[in-house]
Amino acid sequence: MGDATTTSDSSLPPLEKPNVPTQPAEENARVQSTIKTLNLIPHIEGGYFQLSDSSPRSIPSPYPATPLSEDTLKYVDAKPRGDTRLMSTSIFYYLTPNSPKGSFHRNRSRIIHTLHRGRGRYVVIHEDKSIETFVVGNNIEKGEKLQWVVKGGSWKASFLLDDGSAEDNSGLLITETVVPGFDYSDHEFMSQKLFEETVDSEEDRKQLRWLIKQDYSPSA
Amino acid sequence: MGDATTTSDSSLPPLEKPNVPTQPAEENARVQSTIKTLNLIPHIEGGYFQLSDSSPRSIPSPYPATPLSEDTLKYVDAKPRGDTRLMSTSIFYYLTPNSPKGSFHRNRSRIIHTLHRGRGRYVVIHEDKSIETFVVGNNIEKGEKLQWVVKGGSWKASFLLDDGSAEDNSGLLITETVVPGFDYSDHEFMSQKLFEETVDSEEDRKQLRWLIKQDYSPSA
Repeated sequence: MGDATTTSDSSLPPLEKPNVPTQPAEENARVQSTIKTLNLIPHIEGGYFQLSDSSPRSIPSPYPATPLSEDTLKYVDAKPRGDTRLMSTSIFYYLTPNSPKGSFHRNRSRIIHTLHRGRGRYVVIHEDKSIETFVVGNNIEKGEKLQWVVKGGSWKASFLLDDGSAEDNSGLLITETVVPGFDYSDHEFMSQKLFEETVDSEEDRKQLRWLIKQDYSPSA
Repeated sequence: MGDATTTSDSSLPPLEKPNVPTQPAEENARVQSTIKTLNLIPHIEGGYFQLSDSSPRSIPSPYPATPLSEDTLKYVDAKPRGDTRLMSTSIFYYLTPNSPKGSFHRNRSRIIHTLHRGRGRYVVIHEDKSIETFVVGNNIEKGEKLQWVVKGGSWKASFLLDDGSAEDNSGLLITETVVPGFDYSDHEFMSQKLFEETVDSEEDRKQLRWLIKQDYSPSA
C-alpha cells in the first residue's frame, strides 16, 4: 500500500495540515447541498453525520458490561444499551472545508469505512502503540484506499485533503459500518493525558496533537 | 426517493437496458486498471469481485441448518460453513461495460451496499413479491443512492448505466458488506421457474427476464 507507513517508536512522515478555520464560515454550495440532501448534522468528533441504517437483529454484547469511558457517556449524555448490540449500524460521515477534522477516538467494534467522494488522511494508533497513516481517495493506482477497516480498540483520527480538482473542495464523504452496531458505551475520546501516554515520540506528538478533541477535558 | 418505485401487481416504469456484449471484448483502460489494482476476478453472478475483509469474530448462525439452495452449493462447489457465521464480510463488486449485469439472486443476510464510482440500476423483489427499483449514483440531489440496504431474503439484480460522462464508462464500483458474513449456504440464484412464479405481471417479466442468470438450469 504505497502511502501507508507503520512506525512504533518515532517519526511519521511529514503529514499535511489543512487550514482549520478559526471562525465559522459558510460551507460552499455543493457541501451545503450534500448536508441538506443527506440530512447530516454536526458530529461531536468534528465533521457531519447521519445514522443511515440499523440492523433489526440483536446479539448478546461481546463486550464487558462496564462502559469503555464514563466520560464519553457524561459528555454525550448517552444511555448505554446494556447487554445487547445491534448486528450493525451505518452512518454517513462527512468532513468539509469548514469542519475538516475528525478527532482521535476509539470504539470497541471494528468499523468498515467506504469512500463515496473526496480525499483525506487517516491516522490510526493501534493498541501496541504502533502508528499507521494512509490516504483515502479515488487514486487507487497510487495506493489511496476506497475501503479501510479500523480494528476495535485502535484510536483513529482523520482530516480532509485537497482532492486535486480545480473546483471548491466538496468534502470527504464516507460510510462507516460498525459491527456489532454502535453504542456510546463502546466509545472513548482521546484526552490530552491519554495522548501523552500513548504516543511515545515527541516528533509524532508534535504532528498529531492538533488531532485531539480541543474542547474535551475529562474529569479523571 | 425520486427514482424509487414499488409495485406489487404490475407495471414497472420502462427500465433502461445496456448493450450486453454478445462476444467478449477488451475492457477499456481504466476498467482494466481497476480490475488489476483491486485484484478483482469474474463473479458467477456477472461482474467482478474480490473478498476484501472478514471479521475475525464468529457468532452462532441465526439461520436454519439446511442450505437455502442445494443447487447453489453444487453449482459453485462450495462447502457450507455449518452452524457459525463470521460477524461480517465485505467485497468489492464491479459491473463493467463488458460485464454489465449482476443477475437475480438472494441471500439470507442483509447486505449494506456503498457506492465508490459510477451509476447503475437495482431491481429488488421482496418476499411479498413487491418490486422496488432505484438508481445508484452520485447525483444524490436527484434521488440517486450512495448507500442502499437489501434485506435478507429479497431477490436483487443490478445493471450498469451510462454515467453521463464524456469519457468511456469506467464501471459501477461498490462495496458490499454482508452481516452476518457471506456463506454460499445462504445464497440462491433465481431460476427461470422461480422467476415465473415470483413475478406476477407479464409486463414486468418482459422487462426483467434478461436479468436471470442465463447459464443456470437447476436440477429441480
